[in-house]
Amino acid sequence: MILVLNENYEQKQFDNLISWLKSKDFELHVSKGLESTVVGLIGDTSSLDTDMMESLDIVKLVKRVSEPYKSANRKFHPLDTVVEVGDAKIGGGNFSIIAGPCSVESEQQLCSIAESVKKSGAGLLRGGAFKPRTSPYAFQGLRQKGIDLLMAAKEKTGLPIVTEIMDISHLPLFENVDVIQVGARNMQNFELLKELGHTDKPILLKRGLSSTIDELLMSAEYIMAGGNEKVILCERGIRTFEQKTRNTLDLSAIPLLKSLTHLPIIVDPSHATGIAKLVEPMSLAAAACGADGLIIEVHNDPPHALCDGQQSLTPEAFDDLANKVRAILPYAYK
Amino acid sequence: MILVLNENYEQKQFDNLISWLKSKDFELHVSKGLESTVVGLIGDTSSLDTDMMESLDIVKLVKRVSEPYKSANRKFHPLDTVVEVGDAKIGGGNFSIIAGPCSVESEQQLCSIAESVKKSGAGLLRGGAFKPRTSPYAFQGLRQKGIDLLMAAKEKTGLPIVTEIMDISHLPLFENVDVIQVGARNMQNFELLKELGHTDKPILLKRGLSSTIDELLMSAEYIMAGGNEKVILCERGIRTFEQKTRNTLDLSAIPLLKSLTHLPIIVDPSHATGIAKLVEPMSLAAAACGADGLIIEVHNDPPHALCDGQQSLTPEAFDDLANKVRAILPYAYK
Amino acid sequence: MILVLNENYEQKQFDNLISWLKSKDFELHVSKGLESTVVGLIGDTSSLDTDMMESLDIVKLVKRVSEPYKSANRKFHPLDTVVEVGDAKIGGGNFSIIAGPCSVESEQQLCSIAESVKKSGAGLLRGGAFKPRTSPYAFQGLRQKGIDLLMAAKEKTGLPIVTEIMDISHLPLFENVDVIQVGARNMQNFELLKELGHTDKPILLKRGLSSTIDELLMSAEYIMAGGNEKVILCERGIRTFEQKTRNTLDLSAIPLLKSLTHLPIIVDPSHATGIAKLVEPMSLAAAACGADGLIIEVHNDPPHALCDGQQSLTPEAFDDLANKVRAILPYAYK
Amino acid sequence: MILVLNENYEQKQFDNLISWLKSKDFELHVSKGLESTVVGLIGDTSSLDTDMMESLDIVKLVKRVSEPYKSANRKFHPLDTVVEVGDAKIGGGNFSIIAGPCSVESEQQLCSIAESVKKSGAGLLRGGAFKPRTSPYAFQGLRQKGIDLLMAAKEKTGLPIVTEIMDISHLPLFENVDVIQVGARNMQNFELLKELGHTDKPILLKRGLSSTIDELLMSAEYIMAGGNEKVILCERGIRTFEQKTRNTLDLSAIPLLKSLTHLPIIVDPSHATGIAKLVEPMSLAAAACGADGLIIEVHNDPPHALCDGQQSLTPEAFDDLANKVRAILPYAYK
Repeated sequence: MILVLNENYEQKQFDNLISWLKSKDFELHVSKGLESTVVGLIGDTSSLDTDMMESLDIVKLVKRVSEPYKSANRKFHPLDTVVEVGDAKIGGGNFSIIAGPCSVESEQQLCSIAESVKKSGAGLLRGGAFKPRTSPYAFQGLRQKGIDLLMAAKEKTGLPIVTEIMDISHLPLFENVDVIQVGARNMQNFELLKELGHTDKPILLKRGLSSTIDELLMSAEYIMAGGNEKVILCERGIRTFEQKTRNTLDLSAIPLLKSLTHLPIIVDPSHATGIAKLVEPMSLAAAACGADGLIIEVHNDPPHALCDGQQSLTPEAFDDLANKVRAILPYAYK
Repeated sequence: MILVLNENYEQKQFDNLISWLKSKDFELHVSKGLESTVVGLIGDTSSLDTDMMESLDIVKLVKRVSEPYKSANRKFHPLDTVVEVGDAKIGGGNFSIIAGPCSVESEQQLCSIAESVKKSGAGLLRGGAFKPRTSPYAFQGLRQKGIDLLMAAKEKTGLPIVTEIMDISHLPLFENVDVIQVGARNMQNFELLKELGHTDKPILLKRGLSSTIDELLMSAEYIMAGGNEKVILCERGIRTFEQKTRNTLDLSAIPLLKSLTHLPIIVDPSHATGIAKLVEPMSLAAAACGADGLIIEVHNDPPHALCDGQQSLTPEAFDDLANKVRAILPYAYK
Repeated sequence: MILVLNENYEQKQFDNLISWLKSKDFELHVSKGLESTVVGLIGDTSSLDTDMMESLDIVKLVKRVSEPYKSANRKFHPLDTVVEVGDAKIGGGNFSIIAGPCSVESEQQLCSIAESVKKSGAGLLRGGAFKPRTSPYAFQGLRQKGIDLLMAAKEKTGLPIVTEIMDISHLPLFENVDVIQVGARNMQNFELLKELGHTDKPILLKRGLSSTIDELLMSAEYIMAGGNEKVILCERGIRTFEQKTRNTLDLSAIPLLKSLTHLPIIVDPSHATGIAKLVEPMSLAAAACGADGLIIEVHNDPPHALCDGQQSLTPEAFDDLANKVRAILPYAYK
Repeated sequence: MILVLNENYEQKQFDNLISWLKSKDFELHVSKGLESTVVGLIGDTSSLDTDMMESLDIVKLVKRVSEPYKSANRKFHPLDTVVEVGDAKIGGGNFSIIAGPCSVESEQQLCSIAESVKKSGAGLLRGGAFKPRTSPYAFQGLRQKGIDLLMAAKEKTGLPIVTEIMDISHLPLFENVDVIQVGARNMQNFELLKELGHTDKPILLKRGLSSTIDELLMSAEYIMAGGNEKVILCERGIRTFEQKTRNTLDLSAIPLLKSLTHLPIIVDPSHATGIAKLVEPMSLAAAACGADGLIIEVHNDPPHALCDGQQSLTPEAFDDLANKVRAILPYAYK
């Protein structure tokens, strides 16, 4: 970490800063130029908050030289992490598709979709039991009953289950869930992340709506710092000024994340765009630039499915998409 | 709510839509023009999610005519809500200042600041016990011990206490806290909001970093739907491209919120700007455009305070600010 | 266009609105509901500005039903526009690569790159003569001399030339330029767009840094309204909160634009990301989701090229990229 | 400027960089740490582009220590610049209000408003002759005739005239205009800025919709580098995710700009919010935090004024606002 100090600082401020930094066991490298004084910190700066450092009176600018994440950092773990869930493998050159309905509605709906997406090659089944909704008056999901239905579908098809958690207190309900999803709005629910770090379940961590790549990696770090290294990152679109798509899918995050971290990264084109006809082209693009997988909404009766509608594909469209994705994979970025 | 349908829809889709809407007890008003068919819904559309409706194949555009929030809506509650906390009143023409350190560090620090800000006219004491930090390696606050210190300061000064909650499971620790703060990152932690709706504590709800005014009001609605109407809204800056300030304080939200809701609205210029010298001008601006109060960071020893630094005022600077704010209030927007 | 009126409007305001709209030859469809009055406008609403309509006292909400662009609208021109430039074809299933240095520096530099990218399959040569730079003290390009060097390279290689215009007054210098580029910062320089509408040159129109897809199409419409229908759209990244890439490449704009307009759309992965190692994966992703082409920076001596550096590929890396793009094209979205 | 180099760079790259920087006459200060090598540049770095430097292969991070603007920098010109226009003074503790209609429509309209706002204390008259409109089919302003009408109003009332230029080629028409406005969309029309730098007219430079404060100052620098130091900055709202206001007025930019530059800064609450009822509270807030003036839309017949409507005040409302602003000024931030 490099600190550029304000001009005309008081010697006492400088001495305070230096002695405080030394008390934290940093080795310091001070360089006084004509216009400015620069302090280089050598040591583990991951406990220092950039905002905090920048807010000190004497400090003009702060620049991190080394990344603040360690467990998630590829520099210290050059090999790809592969998360194994049942027969499915995510990461390390394996490409996995997670598919299923937005909300779990009934056993019949869920099992029918599960069997169909399994046949098309999906490796995991997704389905929402707890639904984060902007309005308290909107349907909040089947909750516990939704988890039960997911378990029934798992039993029937053998597909591992991915579903979203919304609060620590629900954790006991997730005992037989295979992959616990953390939604975009909870990406910085730090107490939840800490708790999930103490489980041994794979965690599917979605990027927040206006979060940066560094913030996503720091949230992964929260989970990993607790001992759970099975984190799957998910790019699902960020908030921009564009109104025609629900969010803007940030695909350059994929190859960038692959260089920064050893964790697998999958893409959610359904939520990112909110438009069914964009799911196929964006799935192909995600595969082309090196994603480790996709998470896609599939519904067997779109006209009646009121939680997802246009962002859901029919099982037929999903089958077509899965074939096209498999065809493009040999030509994808590696 | 008005739905504009896609051209060339199938009659079956249309029939499905109409019968589904009728089953929800909406009165419908269908108008077929040359270019498009428009369906007007009359009834309580608050349970309908705009995104969900827009994602239906047959629907081209959705426009809400009435606001999706009811309890928070000034239309149904024309009179200002006044939240009373001890001797302090927030809203309804009363102007309150909440002041204190970013993090609770020690009894001596906290009590010294508390006495000083009380003398300067602050009506409530703030201080962080649980700290949401981007990095798991950064100081996470004194937690339970911090709450204890806040209680000690309350006993000494009589000032009501405002402090942030980060998880439902910590609620028992907040039994004697006077105002529970929900931080920007938890504004859409819906399970937490629901739970707080079942308490009878005043809730200070901070706007999320990239949340809209409607989303803020919907989060207030989550709390109010549970029966707790003592919600204080807080504008604390939104994320923009500007890098020179930590966030961008959206002051036009103040008069706008005053017209949309009866709830009190206060402003946090310390976190919004992240720069101590901007706290005074932005406090004056907030007062001038009609805010119901301020929440301000004050520290008695800035050079050593490492969680807030430049965004914190000294007690002397705070005293000066409080005097200037009181002087401008008679000329403020009403 | 649909107008939702404010509740409790005055009859006189309503009469004024209606008579004004009738004077503009709109057919009106008024529907008074319990809660709100809705006015539907039938006719050509492209001359109405949504912001202006929304700012009328009596109007609560405005929603466009039909798109405000006509010449660029696929609805009225279902077939793809193909822009032919020399031997190159852009659009209509043809995939073209435009390549070259960021800035023109010397004849030797330019011709060497031109010959090399031609060999690798580029169909057009790009190079900046006029450079829009944030600082007035930074190198502003070789200007007229840069255009001369581009002409020399065209003569040698036969490659058509693409270069950026910054002001109407420079137009005479562009007489022999094959494709005139409008940069992101000039996307809403409406006087320049109008003037280009009166030329018969193909125009490469880059999306503005914080512009929406609708705004991009309206800027294309400015050119087309003047009679010049040879417009090539270019997605080159939008400004977001992500700091690790220069901008965020919005690839979902590609299939979306293909559905809204008949104009060809190409992608600039070099400027969008600002990082050389991301150019290949994003080129593959752009091809995979249906782009009509790429515009890529290539430099023969990166360590000395100080205007582009890391976002530039070497000719060898470009050759490799071009091969991989050609390999993926048969599997791309159609 | 400080450069942090990538680990494991090649010696040849390093030598190239150093010799190139030395050829530019920078004094260098190289410091090799354990983890990274840091190069400090001493000298005038204003000609170096940060993006360009960051894009070099060998460079990991770039941080400017000194501001890239010189003429606009308060550090080198500690005293406030006061722009005098006729009897009006802008800056240096003088508070000026510019008022008038959005678009010039007729002599009768303009003169009536001009006389009325003059009586209320406005020091300058604004009115649009050239109108930047998103759609080529929308009314583009009266253009030359609009300028003529502004001259007639100036003759009648003695008020200096402020109006927007959209292209260099229109400059001759602005010969008798007192203040030339550069609109938000042209803030980075660098060729226009350069040309205006060669005039001796005061320039009202509006901040771009998604521009940072540094970018605004660099655009001012373009004008000043040409010799014209009479630049008035204008904060007019930036694009954010908030949909309820047209833009988000960034008032913290006011005290921040006052510390960075000696140029006067005024605020446009009409365009920033797009809502008439927000103009008064935001005007009071702007005055309270230290703005040097306001630019406000006033219309004598809002129901018929179709270019501005709700964002325009009536002359009576403007008179009331002007009185309230004068009353709050003695209590404003200094």
